[in-house]
Amino acid sequence: MEKAHQVVIVGGGFGGLYATKSLKNAPVRVTLIDRRNFHLFQPLLYQVATGALSPANIAAPLRAILKRQKNTNVLLAEVVDIDAVNRSVALSDGAKISYDSLIIAAGARHHYFGKDEWEKLAPGLKTIEDATEMRRRILLAFESAEREPDPEKVKAWLTFVIVGAGPTGLELAGALAEVAHDTLKYDFRSINPADARILLIEGAERVLPPYPADLSAKATEQLARLSVTVRTSAIVAEIQPDSVTIRSGEKIEKIPTRTVLWAAGVQASPLGQILSKATGVTLDPAGRVMVEPNLTVPGRPEIFVLGDMVNFSHQTRKPLPGVAPVAVQQGRYVARLIDARLRGQVQTVPFHYKDKGSMATIGRAAAVADIGGFHFSGLFAWLAWLFIHLMYLVEFENRQLVFLQWAWNYVTRNRAARLITGEDSLQR
Amino acid sequence: MEKAHQVVIVGGGFGGLYATKSLKNAPVRVTLIDRRNFHLFQPLLYQVATGALSPANIAAPLRAILKRQKNTNVLLAEVVDIDAVNRSVALSDGAKISYDSLIIAAGARHHYFGKDEWEKLAPGLKTIEDATEMRRRILLAFESAEREPDPEKVKAWLTFVIVGAGPTGLELAGALAEVAHDTLKYDFRSINPADARILLIEGAERVLPPYPADLSAKATEQLARLSVTVRTSAIVAEIQPDSVTIRSGEKIEKIPTRTVLWAAGVQASPLGQILSKATGVTLDPAGRVMVEPNLTVPGRPEIFVLGDMVNFSHQTRKPLPGVAPVAVQQGRYVARLIDARLRGQVQTVPFHYKDKGSMATIGRAAAVADIGGFHFSGLFAWLAWLFIHLMYLVEFENRQLVFLQWAWNYVTRNRAARLITGEDSLQR
Repeated sequence: MEKAHQVVIVGGGFGGLYATKSLKNAPVRVTLIDRRNFHLFQPLLYQVATGALSPANIAAPLRAILKRQKNTNVLLAEVVDIDAVNRSVALSDGAKISYDSLIIAAGARHHYFGKDEWEKLAPGLKTIEDATEMRRRILLAFESAEREPDPEKVKAWLTFVIVGAGPTGLELAGALAEVAHDTLKYDFRSINPADARILLIEGAERVLPPYPADLSAKATEQLARLSVTVRTSAIVAEIQPDSVTIRSGEKIEKIPTRTVLWAAGVQASPLGQILSKATGVTLDPAGRVMVEPNLTVPGRPEIFVLGDMVNFSHQTRKPLPGVAPVAVQQGRYVARLIDARLRGQVQTVPFHYKDKGSMATIGRAAAVADIGGFHFSGLFAWLAWLFIHLMYLVEFENRQLVFLQWAWNYVTRNRAARLITGEDSLQR
Repeated sequence: MEKAHQVVIVGGGFGGLYATKSLKNAPVRVTLIDRRNFHLFQPLLYQVATGALSPANIAAPLRAILKRQKNTNVLLAEVVDIDAVNRSVALSDGAKISYDSLIIAAGARHHYFGKDEWEKLAPGLKTIEDATEMRRRILLAFESAEREPDPEKVKAWLTFVIVGAGPTGLELAGALAEVAHDTLKYDFRSINPADARILLIEGAERVLPPYPADLSAKATEQLARLSVTVRTSAIVAEIQPDSVTIRSGEKIEKIPTRTVLWAAGVQASPLGQILSKATGVTLDPAGRVMVEPNLTVPGRPEIFVLGDMVNFSHQTRKPLPGVAPVAVQQGRYVARLIDARLRGQVQTVPFHYKDKGSMATIGRAAAVADIGGFHFSGLFAWLAWLFIHLMYLVEFENRQLVFLQWAWNYVTRNRAARLITGEDSLQR
């Protein structure tokens, strides 16, 4: 009996998971490797960071998702090296896993443009731990303000600066505004949480820079309604534990704040560099792999790269955005391609992203959406956003419960998951 | 205007929280101090440790619970000293809080009978962090077994030893059996999770030692049905990273295991010692405060101690058990006493615990209960347990959701919250 074709998939995010699932009926053995034991629904991480949802609401164990997929094996492990000549990957515990096809979909981390020292001062939002750390900082800022006698210092505790006005920055700003104005309304005795000042800093000249200009304008209006202060064309020059300095042209401003949240740059997984060393493939400045039109590494047709790790500019001249639908479609495309090859077909159609639109939510019944060239904002855009996100929570056995939790939060304006957990739950 | 009577309450567990709530209409100002920002429903911690519920399902922010109670102020802080002469408590940040009445209800921690080095090897179950650490260890044990080629080592990874067969030990054993037999049934490819061996070690001669003997026998039967091996009259002599050594009389047995869970001794909060230093009050060997029949410290009628921190033996000659109903009733009693004093009444009725029964759950539809002298086991006891626990989740705005989550888990045998989180989610 011939040994089955071995597909090794690195990363259980949207790209890796959908590739795995699409190989369900292919004549292959799949090994899905991830450092975490769960698939994370990253688009809702901001809901964990602001106490509305629990980590388990937006994370599903990979083994649970794939338990009925008999041709697939899940491995909790970290890939530390790739041997492209002998076709194997090395794990951190020394083991080697051989592949016939390799799919790399290890995602991205936030990136501080060379200012790594900012990471401790301005956490980003990519993992469950990032989200609970952000939640801890936000809640402790209100607690510290409540205890602080000096009004100037109270003001710094109640100033929240969000760097980056992409979808994540807007979601965070909107959710934070709700926390301050609704959720915590009656919680304190010395401070009024509604005094919180939320600043959204963006380097480009408008929020949501890749979106159509009219939607940026609508989003700016909606942010203003939530009392979020937007600063565009503003660059973060410095972050200190008690301040952030921003530069707009010649103007330099130092803002006293104790809480800076990072929603700006991302950098592809370091696995891109390992792959580059192993195959000579080129990386772009954000560490993304420059792939062929069929998502393979040049000269290595058996190695595929997907999702946030890829610079795919063949279709629109600029890289596709790092969003879930791109990764999902790429995962499915690669699975079909491998399947077709094994059936002896020569698959030559390049990957083509079907853009079903983009949307960003800002708060209760506030969002903007660009669907098939039609622009929406307000309640309708928000409902569309809600519907699509819930639909995509398909991997989650208990998505009805997540929906109920959400509806409950919406009606009661409560955020029951606002727990301060982790190492120091008393101080910052 | 006269300054209102200041009540300082240390600890937002069952005792402290119910005392606070019962003072709602009293002519006092209440300051509730806790190191955590939430009230924790400890009886369900084992559900977090075994991946059935999320931390936020069993924890409610103290500020949220008390937001409408105008005479009450919540303080996120740690009490490090008590000045009984000048009537104030000192916080870890140096601040001092004055009181007219002081209620101390800081609970208990697990205790290793002088073997503090066991704590790292055999975590206990008192905090949210304890529970997620236990969950991490349990899940990583199965992951490690899946990767391990040596059958002897696989066996050690799949051996779970629980020390202590009180209610917590039984709950953990039953839940772990479900995880192994139901939840993870189809999750692995190299191991069969049902091969897991669950050992319950108890020093006394039967499980649930304080319960009536016939209920211990019933519980033993139910544990056997779940394939839990019970060892009574067995003392833990040594714990190593890869084994636990138990002694039964002359017989010494070394059991290879990688996972030991501690559900044995508890020790009152170190605040007892601080109180003893400040007032001269006697502590019992478990660190519990020897109080007067009205729960005050001898010679200090304005200082009350409640719940797991107290040795209250006036009623039944032996200390009342460290369970939620005792703390709740004590909290209410003390609140009424303070209120009566302020109204000029001399309250002389000592505290009296109304024992409404005790119960322990073992697994799906398996429990034992002693209610008003009537003994139950099996499905009925389990339903009673479920009903009472859900009823007591009153503090939780979203208890309906918790119930739904639970019902969902029950029907699907799923435990969606089985996430490996924290520092090292890859290895043990």
